[in-house]
Amino acid sequence: MNTLIGIGVGPGDPELLTLKAARLLREADVVFAPTTSLDRESRAEQIVHAAAGIRARRLVFALDDQGGVTAERAAAWDEAAHAVLGTFESGARTVGFVTLGDPNVYSTFGYLAQTVAALDAGIRIETVPGITAMQDLAARADVRLAEGREPLTLVPATAGLDEVRNVLAGHGTVVVYKGGRFLGELTAAVEEAGRADAAVLGTDLGLASENIGVLRKPTDGDRAPYFTTLIVPPTRGGRGEKL
Amino acid sequence: MNTLIGIGVGPGDPELLTLKAARLLREADVVFAPTTSLDRESRAEQIVHAAAGIRARRLVFALDDQGGVTAERAAAWDEAAHAVLGTFESGARTVGFVTLGDPNVYSTFGYLAQTVAALDAGIRIETVPGITAMQDLAARADVRLAEGREPLTLVPATAGLDEVRNVLAGHGTVVVYKGGRFLGELTAAVEEAGRADAAVLGTDLGLASENIGVLRKPTDGDRAPYFTTLIVPPTRGGRGEKL
Repeated sequence: MNTLIGIGVGPGDPELLTLKAARLLREADVVFAPTTSLDRESRAEQIVHAAAGIRARRLVFALDDQGGVTAERAAAWDEAAHAVLGTFESGARTVGFVTLGDPNVYSTFGYLAQTVAALDAGIRIETVPGITAMQDLAARADVRLAEGREPLTLVPATAGLDEVRNVLAGHGTVVVYKGGRFLGELTAAVEEAGRADAAVLGTDLGLASENIGVLRKPTDGDRAPYFTTLIVPPTRGGRGEKL
Repeated sequence: MNTLIGIGVGPGDPELLTLKAARLLREADVVFAPTTSLDRESRAEQIVHAAAGIRARRLVFALDDQGGVTAERAAAWDEAAHAVLGTFESGARTVGFVTLGDPNVYSTFGYLAQTVAALDAGIRIETVPGITAMQDLAARADVRLAEGREPLTLVPATAGLDEVRNVLAGHGTVVVYKGGRFLGELTAAVEEAGRADAAVLGTDLGLASENIGVLRKPTDGDRAPYFTTLIVPPTRGGRGEKL
């Protein structure tokens, strides 16, 4: 049966691939990687080359997460789905699509998979989980994401500041993705919630430009990169106090 | 410098270890695994043996998450920390401690690390992320955990039903861990929220006893195993509708 596999490759460090992802990349007949333009090596592409020696084919997507489902974005999904179907028609049995982090967590793979399934219901769709940016940042910054009875909430900054403020008012850890463009407002919201002291911010994890540090109000006009992860842990008392 | 590394080994499938975890397990001078009793091979121990051929030494913990910080639990942490320190005194430079899932997500490693650090501030503490049960279940059950602007909240059933109901009233995906003992009440809460249709339940992921299916009210007295993961995705419309 022809199979399309969404393969999570983690946030940046090639060693954070799973053994399963590395094996499936080697076994796949074709491997695709999303990119914002055909002449640009994407981050996922770099990771699979470093980790498994694989040269992925590029598929163009509008990855910037602005503007909802634009005609350009829908066309890119359709075109990518047709490119995937074309490889099956040319004889491929197993096609991999690599995705930063995890293919089921804020990933473009879901849209591609839905499009492929709508065009050809006979193709089997699978996913392989990958380490997410928040897990990598937690490990690098020595922050426990969740302990005992604490909840843990991920919220993309694109959900809006009210949503972020609402979650910050709770008593669990809050993780904010994609906050680069909103760093000033985000910092203010974390400060208002009285939770700035424990917060850590990570950008470009696993890249040469990686930066991990405390949350600080940006100077006028400052923006963090697109790949920005903010972790705001709750106040914690003694050992095991949240059990 | 003497280093204690909390190594996430994923939820069950040995292939879900990262390349980094596999390397560090092989390089460590000593590897410990938590267990509920010394004469019982733990799940984490089975995973590292299958994935990396490593025989871990057992450390006893009270892993059942009932009763807060009991004297028994505190004593187990202290004893485990002394066992770790003993290996450094015997010449080990790098000691690994394996943990199911991720060492920073509801893991016993944090308590061990805090205890070791309090006894000897000169020991370096590190963690390596691992695939969590919710990611594995999402992949196996073909459920997207989060898409576009949706929030994603993990909540342990031990946080209480009110907390779970509160999160279910929101518009994001809700993941409930450790719900085995509360399956009847949990199912009722998901039904009350009108969200039962899309919910998936996974138990013993990656084990021979693995079960993945829809959420169903247990018959009288039924309990799911301790390692139970419930994913309740939100209602989703067309492709990319949440962007």
